[in-house]
Amino acid sequence: MSNAKLQAIPLGGVGEFGMNMMVLRYGDDIIVIDAGLMFPEAELLGVDVVIPDFSYLLEHRDKVRAVILTHGHEDHIGAVPYLLKEINVPVYGTPFTLALVERKLDEHGLLDSASLQEVRPKDRVKVGPFSIEFIHVTHSIVNATMLAITTPLGVVLHTGDFKVDPTPTDNELFDLHTVAEYGKRGVLALFSDSTNAERPGYTPSERAVRGKLEEVFSRAENRLYVTCFTSSVHRIQLLVDLSFQYNRQVAFVGRSMASNTEAAHRLGYLTVPDGLLLRPNDIKQVPRRQATVLIAGCQGEPLSSLVRAAMENHRYAVIEAGDTVVFSSRIIPGNEKAIYRLINHLFKRGARVVYDDGGPPVHVSGHASQEELMLMLNLAKPRYFIPIHGEFRQLSLHASLASHLKEIQQIFLLESGDVLEFDAAGARKAARVSVGRVCIDYGSVDEVVEDTIIRDRRHISLDGIVLPVIAINKNTGKVETQPEIVTRGFVSGDGDGILAQAREIILETLEQSSGEERGDWGIIKEKIRADLKRFISKQTDRHPLILPIILEI
Amino acid sequence: MSNAKLQAIPLGGVGEFGMNMMVLRYGDDIIVIDAGLMFPEAELLGVDVVIPDFSYLLEHRDKVRAVILTHGHEDHIGAVPYLLKEINVPVYGTPFTLALVERKLDEHGLLDSASLQEVRPKDRVKVGPFSIEFIHVTHSIVNATMLAITTPLGVVLHTGDFKVDPTPTDNELFDLHTVAEYGKRGVLALFSDSTNAERPGYTPSERAVRGKLEEVFSRAENRLYVTCFTSSVHRIQLLVDLSFQYNRQVAFVGRSMASNTEAAHRLGYLTVPDGLLLRPNDIKQVPRRQATVLIAGCQGEPLSSLVRAAMENHRYAVIEAGDTVVFSSRIIPGNEKAIYRLINHLFKRGARVVYDDGGPPVHVSGHASQEELMLMLNLAKPRYFIPIHGEFRQLSLHASLASHLKEIQQIFLLESGDVLEFDAAGARKAARVSVGRVCIDYGSVDEVVEDTIIRDRRHISLDGIVLPVIAINKNTGKVETQPEIVTRGFVSGDGDGILAQAREIILETLEQSSGEERGDWGIIKEKIRADLKRFISKQTDRHPLILPIILEI
Repeated sequence: MSNAKLQAIPLGGVGEFGMNMMVLRYGDDIIVIDAGLMFPEAELLGVDVVIPDFSYLLEHRDKVRAVILTHGHEDHIGAVPYLLKEINVPVYGTPFTLALVERKLDEHGLLDSASLQEVRPKDRVKVGPFSIEFIHVTHSIVNATMLAITTPLGVVLHTGDFKVDPTPTDNELFDLHTVAEYGKRGVLALFSDSTNAERPGYTPSERAVRGKLEEVFSRAENRLYVTCFTSSVHRIQLLVDLSFQYNRQVAFVGRSMASNTEAAHRLGYLTVPDGLLLRPNDIKQVPRRQATVLIAGCQGEPLSSLVRAAMENHRYAVIEAGDTVVFSSRIIPGNEKAIYRLINHLFKRGARVVYDDGGPPVHVSGHASQEELMLMLNLAKPRYFIPIHGEFRQLSLHASLASHLKEIQQIFLLESGDVLEFDAAGARKAARVSVGRVCIDYGSVDEVVEDTIIRDRRHISLDGIVLPVIAINKNTGKVETQPEIVTRGFVSGDGDGILAQAREIILETLEQSSGEERGDWGIIKEKIRADLKRFISKQTDRHPLILPIILEI
Repeated sequence: MSNAKLQAIPLGGVGEFGMNMMVLRYGDDIIVIDAGLMFPEAELLGVDVVIPDFSYLLEHRDKVRAVILTHGHEDHIGAVPYLLKEINVPVYGTPFTLALVERKLDEHGLLDSASLQEVRPKDRVKVGPFSIEFIHVTHSIVNATMLAITTPLGVVLHTGDFKVDPTPTDNELFDLHTVAEYGKRGVLALFSDSTNAERPGYTPSERAVRGKLEEVFSRAENRLYVTCFTSSVHRIQLLVDLSFQYNRQVAFVGRSMASNTEAAHRLGYLTVPDGLLLRPNDIKQVPRRQATVLIAGCQGEPLSSLVRAAMENHRYAVIEAGDTVVFSSRIIPGNEKAIYRLINHLFKRGARVVYDDGGPPVHVSGHASQEELMLMLNLAKPRYFIPIHGEFRQLSLHASLASHLKEIQQIFLLESGDVLEFDAAGARKAARVSVGRVCIDYGSVDEVVEDTIIRDRRHISLDGIVLPVIAINKNTGKVETQPEIVTRGFVSGDGDGILAQAREIILETLEQSSGEERGDWGIIKEKIRADLKRFISKQTDRHPLILPIILEI
């Protein structure tokens, strides 16, 4: 075995954002670092999420020993169920990470068969020839770690996602000492997060949002809605604390908001004073100035709680004139239009809306800016450096930063599918493995996922294409003509009346939507898609690509 | 006539971004302030531009006396040809504004019949009961004005677009004195630009970009590409000056870049030292460090010169390792993904790319921030205030700013189509008129517009829908299966072989595209759409909606 090579093979997340997945192979042993998803681009209409094509792992299934998770964000854990369904190996992660994974596995009916191995920072686990130490890092989620993986050829550091927050709100400092220790002893290769490589300077501490949020709490006279990423436990803790301080009860609205805070609370990462919790169906019962509503939907997702509340279509969350709505989140590129449309709707309700205006921040990033990236490079002093987690421009800028360090012998700009090979003689790009994206459609969107199916776009064309064409007057929200349905490769003729029924479904969806919803294409398209999908898969057991086309009149 | 009412009716640009158009009516006389277009949202695939539905003007065509233009941006002049085609009335505007309008009219074959009335700041024109004074404002285009319109019921101020730049690069100061004079004498109503109402403080002066751009020029060792809005004559002048200073010749690449700079030069708004101009086909002939290329495409438009250069598909503009590319422009919301993909491609070419990184600016806005908006409100002291040019949130924030001024008797939040009525008793929202958006498809995209056609989405469904379905491997850019074409209401059967020919057209388009282009959905979709459209309209004289669907493999 002394001549064996070490291979690092990113199956996702390098040269693209999201669906992070890195394979480390030494001889006949493989470990998988993270297994994430990505949310589809607008061009990928008709698809819920995207995961990496991991056929490489399927081809070498007998060698795969474990999945190692750095933290619990969707772009790091979202593909775990799909992977475990195929290759059931132990999954290592910190308590909060595993809590989020557990819920996913449960929804997929995989929880009983899965082997979840809880670790804590400073723990070491041995998997085949790899000895893996988990190192605590600061990031926008609790319980985030980086990995120091000792291999027969040297130590590989994988940062996961991180920032260097000198004053984290939970007072759990980045364990820089351990990184320094590895650096001192010698690091073969560093794989480091490039998400914010375009930003000069330092990312502000999570504490930086407190000032502005405190001002908002002190000024809010009626109901206070705050939306943020639902896994941002630090942020949620701050909002709970401020609510307590300002005599407001707190309701958690939205499925992921409720389940993530429940998990964080159960594990002791979120402290909620007794009597502070408000059930969503009691929101209307308490005086408006005594309620904070933490609500999911910060990206303007068409079916999210906040969007429904903004459109007057939510049972419990009602936004009235004089209420305040805070976006304590960033805009993920591609979601601008949807978010700004949501904000317009909130203004129309008469809400005061607080969002990034270039003044004191209501959100800070969880990723390291250039100076922090340099600090990581300085501490690790790797022989080889590989920027990960970013599109080509971020990787490229991260590489430029590192090019000033003479300790680094070589920098590799990889793309997903590249095989980077290490041996006694050095490191080099070797062959490529097959990679790609696999599109996933849930059986239904808004509910518990019952019959999730994986399929490739190749299979979509086998199941056909369904294009509902609907003419809507954007100003009035009125439907001007009967919906038409164009299909290809789905049914012949009227398909035993299935298309007539589908037209009825569309009409029902339209009827049950508010005029505001019908006037907002992004939302009405998604509602029609979700309802038609549910109907068609129940009736035909087929999963065609459904692309609603809205004609404006 | 003493009992006549004054009506202000926005037909576009209020509650939506772009396609600004405001009708002012007194008795039997109507003037139209601006006639702009908007670029379609992603949901409006298959459409080139959108203009306001001006049926209200058609219904009252005998009353329309003139079109008054505040400045030459597309969202203020883009609909002029479509309006003049229906109602040929005199058009008033400053020299540069009219130069841009002339080109449009020429393309539509309307130049000979049009009556263009050149005005300069401080000029007054009388149109029916309206006396209109043009007042110089600072904005991101030269020759921008606001309007003081004296009516029988009082003075109406319409700001057009503005910022208050205390140090404009052409030293032409905002004529605040005249605004102050009107304010002193009494203003009935102020209609003011709300684009930047979300931004606290002051918008930096156009001069603020000089520092960073000078640094870029001093560091650039090879070819220097700069992209900016092609009507930003101040910015272009600065880039020409810096080129002269750093011994670089300047090439203007892209149709709008070439024609806009030609017009600005001819009218004396752009000064180019003798011998500095470089023809695009000579770019490759001069040493790399002696060329600046000002190139169109700052929004990542799929068929623009910069995108083609980044994809190695431009005859003259070749981007090589070591070249510098500067984005001296903002990202228009909705274009983020396209622009970031473009930047990734540039990095892959080995270019150094300079874009907004939160440091010293490479672009500043041309619109007033909150303090400047307050200054305008203070100077004008209107009885009635109506925020315009913005979506609901900007209008609403602008209204909040104004609510602190006790001089203002009432603030109206209008939407396009609302009729605001003034008479001796006061002002109120009266009835609504019919408004909407009209989608326009050019006969072809990349060339001179030959056979522009207007049509409503209603007509699109009459002409049918054509959906080419193409399976492309995103990683390799390879086309995996024969393209299929789904149609509805377009042809029956194979339509005399037209669909077979259309498949050939698609294959040709794919063959003539680089692998990089085929791997970029936004671009390949637009290329297929443009080529198919040209083919189908030539063969059938019909204009179906064409929506390419790319399946990922």
